[in-house]
Amino acid sequence: MAYIDLPKELPGILGPMTFRPETAKHLNALAETLLRGPSTLTSGERELIAAYVSHQNNCLFCHSSHGAAAAHHYGRNYELVDQVKNNYQSAPISDKLKALLGVAGKVQKGGRHVTPEDIEAARAKGATDLEIHDTVLIAAAFCMFNRYVDGLNTWAPAETLAYDDMGKRLAEVGYNSF
Amino acid sequence: MAYIDLPKELPGILGPMTFRPETAKHLNALAETLLRGPSTLTSGERELIAAYVSHQNNCLFCHSSHGAAAAHHYGRNYELVDQVKNNYQSAPISDKLKALLGVAGKVQKGGRHVTPEDIEAARAKGATDLEIHDTVLIAAAFCMFNRYVDGLNTWAPAETLAYDDMGKRLAEVGYNSF
Repeated sequence: MAYIDLPKELPGILGPMTFRPETAKHLNALAETLLRGPSTLTSGERELIAAYVSHQNNCLFCHSSHGAAAAHHYGRNYELVDQVKNNYQSAPISDKLKALLGVAGKVQKGGRHVTPEDIEAARAKGATDLEIHDTVLIAAAFCMFNRYVDGLNTWAPAETLAYDDMGKRLAEVGYNSF
Repeated sequence: MAYIDLPKELPGILGPMTFRPETAKHLNALAETLLRGPSTLTSGERELIAAYVSHQNNCLFCHSSHGAAAAHHYGRNYELVDQVKNNYQSAPISDKLKALLGVAGKVQKGGRHVTPEDIEAARAKGATDLEIHDTVLIAAAFCMFNRYVDGLNTWAPAETLAYDDMGKRLAEVGYNSF
């Protein structure tokens, strides 16, 4: 049960966002820009980074919902999402995205964990300044979203497929609809 | 030196915010609402939470700038800010704020670190649902801001007083001016 009085029917971040619309609008606008705004990273790649970081933070709601969004960006490919969450080095994704996931994983541990070598590895695979910037900020933002969701002890469905409709909506319509 | 090509003269978060104004506007709007919008927590209390979490994350730019903002909310009281950063239990602040700093410190470690006992301790000192919500989101948001600033290896002045003008501006004018 959540630590504060939230609408019982809403899982994960949807409860606190309904409770505090003043902050929710900026959180949704940030997610929309970061994950779906203009970028040379595809929305699928960015949702994979979000799902990976959320999985590292053990945030069930966030890694399931953004995993579902990522799956829908890749033709409803949940297997790919599971591979990225559990062992991205062996996943069928680009070397550039693997290197960016390496940077994201360091950000998840803490900003000072990122090394010049992590950045150079990403550059060597073709990552631009903008792509490095966006990867760092996506990873950092999900360290916020994950803590927001779990710090208030919100509930979340356990089954991956419970997130399928939400993931489709996030992939096709986006975050401003919440 | 920052990991990406940022304006050299701008310290901390100001470089990446100038580099990527599309995301900066939402980050500033979030900070303005969280730290200065309507709340039963004062802006001084909220800046102390921000400075404390940033200090726990060892983010020099953020704990110095938000520490300076907090100081200005309390009549330029830097001693109070140092006490909160280093040992808030002995600082001359309310028992409610001490309990909320306890919650914030758990959020800094990870959302799942917050226990029902942490929340009950805050309620016993008079904290409301809104105050618990805002404390969790402020702590979570600074886990983002801190990672953004340090994950890109931005530079930051070492001296506390280098942040005095910025802190005054944050306390008096706010975040929408950036």
